[in-house]
Amino acid sequence: MKPARASPKLRIVVVNPGPGAGDEYAQAARSRRGATLRIGLLESGYDIVASLPADVFLPERIAQLQPDLIIVDSESDARDVLEHIVLATREEPRPIVLFTDDQAPSSVEAAMEAGVSAYIVAGLQPERVKPVLDVALARFRHERKLLDELSETRQKLAERKVVERAKGLLMERYRLSEEQAFQKLRGMAMNKKLKLAEIAQRILDVEDLLG
Amino acid sequence: MKPARASPKLRIVVVNPGPGAGDEYAQAARSRRGATLRIGLLESGYDIVASLPADVFLPERIAQLQPDLIIVDSESDARDVLEHIVLATREEPRPIVLFTDDQAPSSVEAAMEAGVSAYIVAGLQPERVKPVLDVALARFRHERKLLDELSETRQKLAERKVVERAKGLLMERYRLSEEQAFQKLRGMAMNKKLKLAEIAQRILDVEDLLG
Repeated sequence: MKPARASPKLRIVVVNPGPGAGDEYAQAARSRRGATLRIGLLESGYDIVASLPADVFLPERIAQLQPDLIIVDSESDARDVLEHIVLATREEPRPIVLFTDDQAPSSVEAAMEAGVSAYIVAGLQPERVKPVLDVALARFRHERKLLDELSETRQKLAERKVVERAKGLLMERYRLSEEQAFQKLRGMAMNKKLKLAEIAQRILDVEDLLG
Repeated sequence: MKPARASPKLRIVVVNPGPGAGDEYAQAARSRRGATLRIGLLESGYDIVASLPADVFLPERIAQLQPDLIIVDSESDARDVLEHIVLATREEPRPIVLFTDDQAPSSVEAAMEAGVSAYIVAGLQPERVKPVLDVALARFRHERKLLDELSETRQKLAERKVVERAKGLLMERYRLSEEQAFQKLRGMAMNKKLKLAEIAQRILDVEDLLG
């Protein structure tokens, strides 16, 4: 985690869908939307470090830029853009804010699954940008906490299963009591400087190999 | 006979903070806010089943009304209202949408912890109400899924610990192998028509009692 500051200047990457379809009118409307968003961000004191197309280079560029927050500005085809963003943030999750005109329930659902922290439909007034981003950041931290807790609990459960199976194997193989098997496992882990679950997994792997 | 509809009409409860402080001007502003929200809800085809104050009767009334969604309309003192709502939805979680002017980071954080599905700062345009509520519902379902998964995984881990401890106890007490202890435990569970973890917990409870 970065050190807390009174008011840190958030580094933002804006992702747009490609040049997109539509006639001149549609393209003009799109560029007005983009301008409104930029005004809102700048007026709120954010730092737009890049404006990127949603293409195959996105993951690499996000990894280089390390933004604090990613904004997707996509009137309709948000789902394609999101797929790129999900790939680009899989290793290092970041808050994602989606401004869109796409109200389809399936699109909203897909965005939640993709980890979008704020899904804003037709709400691009510049003065609303800051509160939306503040809530999105809090939402992101809250959901990360939940997800971290979930993966930690899953990990503990998985480790416990592996240790139990390895213990059972040692008990059977060497006719040990449960306590003796556990001590043997612990001794092996300390010798190899491994976690209990790691040495247990190795024992099971060898057993699999030997059949 | 009800007309067939694509989507059922959402039943909404609006919760307001009490009469509140402030001069005539503040109270007039508050009543304008409330009216704007109601117009937005009605225009979007929602069913406002009740408008309730945030008081000690709230849990009972929400249990009676069983709304699909709870809207909190609170310009500033959202935290007190949220405490009531949290109590009122602890047993049966429901989507909560908060419209407020309170932008304090600690208030936003507290709202996330309280399970608020949408935190809308100063965004009360009537036409924006429906998309906000749609996103809030999807958000609520998504977070419920995560929370359910977390509590299920925690439960499995807890049960596994209890079963292991009971098994160890039986092995020691009756000089059984691990397999024999497990079979004994399973036999007892089947006899009593209990889950493995339940019979294991009883064995541990008795052990505690007997010292």
